[in-house]
Amino acid sequence: MTQPYAHILRVRYSETDQMGIVYHARYLDWFEVARTELIRSHGVNYRKLEEDQGLLLPVVDVALKYRQPARYDDEIALYARVQEAGAVRLIFAYEIRRLADDLLLVEGTTGHLWVNRDWKPIRIDRSSPELYRFLQQLEQAGKVEGS
Amino acid sequence: MTQPYAHILRVRYSETDQMGIVYHARYLDWFEVARTELIRSHGVNYRKLEEDQGLLLPVVDVALKYRQPARYDDEIALYARVQEAGAVRLIFAYEIRRLADDLLLVEGTTGHLWVNRDWKPIRIDRSSPELYRFLQQLEQAGKVEGS
Amino acid sequence: MTQPYAHILRVRYSETDQMGIVYHARYLDWFEVARTELIRSHGVNYRKLEEDQGLLLPVVDVALKYRQPARYDDEIALYARVQEAGAVRLIFAYEIRRLADDLLLVEGTTGHLWVNRDWKPIRIDRSSPELYRFLQQLEQAGKVEGS
Amino acid sequence: MTQPYAHILRVRYSETDQMGIVYHARYLDWFEVARTELIRSHGVNYRKLEEDQGLLLPVVDVALKYRQPARYDDEIALYARVQEAGAVRLIFAYEIRRLADDLLLVEGTTGHLWVNRDWKPIRIDRSSPELYRFLQQLEQAGKVEGS
Repeated sequence: MTQPYAHILRVRYSETDQMGIVYHARYLDWFEVARTELIRSHGVNYRKLEEDQGLLLPVVDVALKYRQPARYDDEIALYARVQEAGAVRLIFAYEIRRLADDLLLVEGTTGHLWVNRDWKPIRIDRSSPELYRFLQQLEQAGKVEGS
Repeated sequence: MTQPYAHILRVRYSETDQMGIVYHARYLDWFEVARTELIRSHGVNYRKLEEDQGLLLPVVDVALKYRQPARYDDEIALYARVQEAGAVRLIFAYEIRRLADDLLLVEGTTGHLWVNRDWKPIRIDRSSPELYRFLQQLEQAGKVEGS
Repeated sequence: MTQPYAHILRVRYSETDQMGIVYHARYLDWFEVARTELIRSHGVNYRKLEEDQGLLLPVVDVALKYRQPARYDDEIALYARVQEAGAVRLIFAYEIRRLADDLLLVEGTTGHLWVNRDWKPIRIDRSSPELYRFLQQLEQAGKVEGS
Repeated sequence: MTQPYAHILRVRYSETDQMGIVYHARYLDWFEVARTELIRSHGVNYRKLEEDQGLLLPVVDVALKYRQPARYDDEIALYARVQEAGAVRLIFAYEIRRLADDLLLVEGTTGHLWVNRDWKPIRIDRSSPELYRFLQQLEQAGKVEGS
């Protein structure tokens, strides 16, 4: 991925397991951080989407490949981009790299559906002009940044 | 504690840290399990309290003493009792023991307030006869089981 | 899956998120529980593999599909089987169902490599007769139980 | 607390529970982050203490008071100081505040013992001149920054 967006964090003790590495499920927590920050970088606050518009973006599938383990106190760079920004479904792609040497640790994707508070799927179209514009922006960013 | 109530669980890999022991914050998750099961043993479903009555029981303080570490795959006995069951405030006391040899690992307390969905403190009195009875039952159980 | 092996657990409060459902990363913790118990059901203690033989079985990839959300206090049935039991690589497949009505909530797979304490890949062959037999047993079980 | 040391983080989705607030055990993860960063600010890398010197600093007791809940996406300021820096035992004190308005959310302490890899208590004295100096520095910082 060559996109400009990245978020830096440091591995917490609580994220390790007795193998001495980051527990494999914790990378999904980091994907969520990367996703939130990517969305924020496009001028949209995911918290407000939930609170004000009653929109949720639950995860419907994930895939991860673990290349190298992250360890306690490592500084980590999270990279995220939009792979697909449809009216119904969103796919984000991620890379997690060790900051010190840019070593690829984990890569993966998460698929999402837009749903409302009653957990019914929602279609984002021109009737929600602000979100529609946001999606188009995400899609465009994905095209530019991806490949 | 000599009370009859106990719940058994087995330590998960995800609960360990790189020290090779259970991460110290995880015991609070187990206290919550013990509390839920203790409440259930008195015929009250905490989930329904939240869903049907809009009552929440947030934690307002905790204290823990760590005696010995729990390790992956250990079978653990959680003991819980009610230390104080007031109309406004509840205190639970816990012991976490290794099942194999009854070794005391962790002990502690959690204090709670009854609040409503708007996070306003609630007083449980005779106007909620069912809950009031539940509290009296908890208080009585604490007296019998404690000491 | 029609295999006999299953493990039951109850959803903890700490496993929920503000969407009111189990946070999507937590299912990987449960996959780990299911895997440990499946291995135990074949007479092998994973903890002892690590401690006595210095063998680790880190996760190298995962895939999950989320069908329906699990909720606090739900009783959950974890089903696990071996999909592939090679000398170098193991793949486990999982289903997570709501106990009350057998509703499929989540399904997925995890891929693993055998490595030693120095994180070097290990081949399990006839030179480790006990483990070799275990793998053959797992593979056989997968064939019988799968499909 | 009026000490200069603080670390900023943002609440993750994975740290919330179905009450819509940060799950109460997660503050202990943040205390650990604050502790690591406070130690680093005194020129000591806790990871290296573990790796190079075989020194561990397990938690032996904790106490927390929950004043106000933190919520998803809140920016949080973690304050930490050393309350007691003995040769055998260390106590850290913490405050967690909402960055936007400095509202106190949670305060607490954690007590620690120095132990070696075999889990035997260690006394830090002049025979370990570097660590001894570090402890004196921590103690001095506590005196200046505390009260």
